[in-house]
Amino acid sequence: MELIDGKKVAAEVKAEIARDVEKMVTEGHKRPHLAAILVGHDGGSETYVASKVKACEECGFKSSLLRFDENITQDELLKAIADLNNDSDVDGFIVQLPLPRHIDEQRVIEAIDPGKDVDGFHPVNVGRMSIGLPCFISATPSGIMELLRRYDIDTRGKRCVVLGRSNIVGKPVASLMQQKANPGNATVTVCHSATPDIAEICREADIIIAALGHPGFVTADMVKDGAVVIDVGTTRVADPTRKSGFRLSGDVDFENVAPKCSYITPVPGGVGPMTICSLMKNTLLAASRKVY
Amino acid sequence: MELIDGKKVAAEVKAEIARDVEKMVTEGHKRPHLAAILVGHDGGSETYVASKVKACEECGFKSSLLRFDENITQDELLKAIADLNNDSDVDGFIVQLPLPRHIDEQRVIEAIDPGKDVDGFHPVNVGRMSIGLPCFISATPSGIMELLRRYDIDTRGKRCVVLGRSNIVGKPVASLMQQKANPGNATVTVCHSATPDIAEICREADIIIAALGHPGFVTADMVKDGAVVIDVGTTRVADPTRKSGFRLSGDVDFENVAPKCSYITPVPGGVGPMTICSLMKNTLLAASRKVY
Repeated sequence: MELIDGKKVAAEVKAEIARDVEKMVTEGHKRPHLAAILVGHDGGSETYVASKVKACEECGFKSSLLRFDENITQDELLKAIADLNNDSDVDGFIVQLPLPRHIDEQRVIEAIDPGKDVDGFHPVNVGRMSIGLPCFISATPSGIMELLRRYDIDTRGKRCVVLGRSNIVGKPVASLMQQKANPGNATVTVCHSATPDIAEICREADIIIAALGHPGFVTADMVKDGAVVIDVGTTRVADPTRKSGFRLSGDVDFENVAPKCSYITPVPGGVGPMTICSLMKNTLLAASRKVY
Repeated sequence: MELIDGKKVAAEVKAEIARDVEKMVTEGHKRPHLAAILVGHDGGSETYVASKVKACEECGFKSSLLRFDENITQDELLKAIADLNNDSDVDGFIVQLPLPRHIDEQRVIEAIDPGKDVDGFHPVNVGRMSIGLPCFISATPSGIMELLRRYDIDTRGKRCVVLGRSNIVGKPVASLMQQKANPGNATVTVCHSATPDIAEICREADIIIAALGHPGFVTADMVKDGAVVIDVGTTRVADPTRKSGFRLSGDVDFENVAPKCSYITPVPGGVGPMTICSLMKNTLLAASRKVY
């Protein structure tokens, strides 16, 4: 069993990006610039945005953080987005989700210029990914594919089971895994809440990608010997032994599943660290104008 | 075994659309208007466009056919598309594919206003379908879903195997079948050229949707008793006994597979007739401004 070290790979990717950025700057180009919009003071969102700002520094990007009160109107937020769309110094930007309830998230996502949509949530980017055209791929699916690539895991013709059909993980990662590409070219089955026989389907899988948000869902009896297991779950579970009062739990019963695997991602330290570096990759891509 | 009669269902759908159109007109709205751009004189394209014009008549739509010489430049074609985008009388339009080689098809598709893209090929419509937002769904996947709906075929929790991962059939029908909807909610596996064990996977399927373009690919030994088989293949096979010199062949060995099925679509007369009526549904939807 080999542990897939997302933290190490993420550091490698960021170092590569930093090298590319220095080369760009040496050649007279401006530094890539990622902006983030943060509405309100949600604890999780603050943490995510802070780590994105830190990643920008590691990559040599310029970063801007635009903070708005949680009472901002939808029109004011749309105006701020329009300003970023029109700001030629900003290569890409994100609007940290979730947004307050009075704001229509989908409306906000669709207001972002697809060419600056480095989160890859705009329908144009989702559609282009499905068709197989150049696009910004959203962070988690992109991070998973990067891990498979870096560990040189053979996916061609393999049976891949994706657990979960969310718009941000399950659907896009299924789409990428079945694409005519490497990694890709897998035979993908998507399981979800209406699937009656998930355990049986998982037992046939060469690769399991678990993205249900259901701690410990994937147990050892569901995994065949030698399988590759990618755990996308990050649910906060109460843990009084921790100072924070919680720990992150994956969708996989790691202790019992890991010994059966050829490769497995831990939680934390597997897929998680890759998501931010996928955002950095998209920002570099946006700055190099290679997509749009 | 029940034969799924696409010709009959398509006639019913068109009759329903025609009733809706007469109601719209009685209420003072204008007739829906579908325009089609046809470049050159490809025999297949001429036939398709003619049948679309005829379907418009059956539905009470206004239709326009814009013909261009095969030597039209890409810029001239893009200009014609811009004119249709700006023509408030045109509710929806299609550019009949394939286009001559000197024209970039993807560029043409993306030039169409997504709100008039009744073929549903624009990335915005593809992306919105994947996310589960209102959109124009392309004709073949939409026609398949309509057949499942009209025959009240239970898809929830069923194992569905899609053969083929094309952008116009395999990928979108897989996306629709796994969506949280009815029909939908199936556990979908997509097989393709890199899948080594297609026969084995098919044998587990409650529903097989074959869209490979490989005549007679699905044989009786690949189908379990009681399965639902949807045959999207329409390959021209030489047949000297026909006046035309060819016949249409599906992807399924119908003669031997049909006796094992609970439901099966014939070729021709199954999915084929549904595609045009899906285009008519999209045009009515575009005219009612219910999507964009």
